[in-house]
Amino acid sequence: MGLKAASDTGPVTVVMLADATDWIERLAPLLPGETLLDTEEAALRPGDVDVAIVEGTAVGLKAFPNVRFIQSTWMGADRIVAEPELPAGALLARMVAGPMTASMAEFVVASVLFIHRRFPEYLDQQSRREWTEHHQPFAAERPIGILGAGTLGSASAVMLRACGFPVRSWARTNRANDPTVLTGPGGLVELLNTSDMLVNLLPLTPETTGIVNREFLGLCRRGVGIINAGRGQHVDDAALLEALDSGQVGQAILDVFAVEPLPEDHRFWTHPRVRVMPHIAAASTGAAVAESTANGVRAYRSGSEIPNLVDGTRGY
Amino acid sequence: MGLKAASDTGPVTVVMLADATDWIERLAPLLPGETLLDTEEAALRPGDVDVAIVEGTAVGLKAFPNVRFIQSTWMGADRIVAEPELPAGALLARMVAGPMTASMAEFVVASVLFIHRRFPEYLDQQSRREWTEHHQPFAAERPIGILGAGTLGSASAVMLRACGFPVRSWARTNRANDPTVLTGPGGLVELLNTSDMLVNLLPLTPETTGIVNREFLGLCRRGVGIINAGRGQHVDDAALLEALDSGQVGQAILDVFAVEPLPEDHRFWTHPRVRVMPHIAAASTGAAVAESTANGVRAYRSGSEIPNLVDGTRGY
Repeated sequence: MGLKAASDTGPVTVVMLADATDWIERLAPLLPGETLLDTEEAALRPGDVDVAIVEGTAVGLKAFPNVRFIQSTWMGADRIVAEPELPAGALLARMVAGPMTASMAEFVVASVLFIHRRFPEYLDQQSRREWTEHHQPFAAERPIGILGAGTLGSASAVMLRACGFPVRSWARTNRANDPTVLTGPGGLVELLNTSDMLVNLLPLTPETTGIVNREFLGLCRRGVGIINAGRGQHVDDAALLEALDSGQVGQAILDVFAVEPLPEDHRFWTHPRVRVMPHIAAASTGAAVAESTANGVRAYRSGSEIPNLVDGTRGY
Repeated sequence: MGLKAASDTGPVTVVMLADATDWIERLAPLLPGETLLDTEEAALRPGDVDVAIVEGTAVGLKAFPNVRFIQSTWMGADRIVAEPELPAGALLARMVAGPMTASMAEFVVASVLFIHRRFPEYLDQQSRREWTEHHQPFAAERPIGILGAGTLGSASAVMLRACGFPVRSWARTNRANDPTVLTGPGGLVELLNTSDMLVNLLPLTPETTGIVNREFLGLCRRGVGIINAGRGQHVDDAALLEALDSGQVGQAILDVFAVEPLPEDHRFWTHPRVRVMPHIAAASTGAAVAESTANGVRAYRSGSEIPNLVDGTRGY
């Protein structure tokens, strides 16, 4: 039972999250005018519900025909956008929390430095008690390419630059007219040709699905480092494995996979050039998610600009 | 034979470096007024030599009784300061090159993020094909303590702060009156009590030898991360191993050792909480070392302030 179940006044939001009671408790002080109901409570008065808080999915939403605004607690909009239950014409917002963005940037910098400072080789040497120093280029000599120039890509670029790396990004559109953001197919080729490492932070859309394929990898510098913190579906696994086998890709740090958990028999687990991370790049806290979520609902209610609104046609 | 062997005019510097011919070739354009001789050439006119360029040692210097300025090509002054051949009263300068400082800061940030983002656990899990997510604190929640607040410590602090970590340091004296620099025995206790990770970048002196001992480690937070990029002699190996065995130290990344290469039978090689690096923290280039070295000689000749002068009484 939600805290506000007794109150019948005010606009009604259905909170379709696991542990809905906890979330309602967290959200209630942030949304004092709002009636927050869990799915069961909301089912008793479905016509009153015009806002839904969901976790990355639209499953169950058709029970609430008058929903006009959907706030997801996930950063990625790919799954919900693809779902048939998503009500046509409703506004949809992703969750973007400051601490989560910082956490992703930390992960990107940790991964880039791990490869840059040759930790894979040195850890491998340690297992053989081998003491051999390798040539160490400076960060300033290692151009990093980021696929995606949104909140996550920009925060990662700032942190990488603070560590001395030259960074350029690639995005569908260059909204900020930033000379370090390349666009279009030509921009992608240029980024792949000139980067020592590539970090994927793209949203998953029909256009970006499978973007890291044989052609893409063939355009990279020999021995390139690949860091995938976007979605598993961005990568053609067979093409990546072939490039890892041949040494075209020198190191890969993969945090996301087409199937998660990564199946036990997948070659990524044992490939000497691959580090498998269990989808841990962007840590978050309940407080941060609640705040970002409440912001979205408040913006919708007050008619002000809703942050991180998803554009259904581009899919993120 | 040095390039300037034929010239008999101008002040005379002996270049006591391995590959002296290469170094003289590199230094000659940077020190046009100087006669640069290798040890053999200089031995023919020992009384004329008043400057020596050496690599971290004073061995052989007593052949040149009139040396008044010694420029080392090493950052660490500990070995040369301890040598009986160091001429009394001569000025001694360490080499501090910008790219080397940046390289050290990169290594520190790479190591801190490696521990912070739980790469040791995740790499270990990968070997068992285990998919388990662990709690991930934010950088802002992980205070980092740096032992040493000189060029290397300051550069590392700046880069760590850019990645979101709260950083404090400890130094013998707080020359900049920086509130984040603690001093004295009380300051050290405070830093050890309050840091999630400790980075050693101290100079090696009689006072700092063995500073990372049982008492020091006992004052740390349980599970502390230790990164040693200073000198192996800063660490009491037996005390560190005991703290690693008990879990008092959660992770250690060691780049320097009392004996290098690290002997094959040393327990550091195989301890599950230790990463052994073969003294690779601060990469440098010949060009950067030559420039820094030439700067020192030029400053001495022109009577201007000599950068990175070693204070014989404090030993760095």
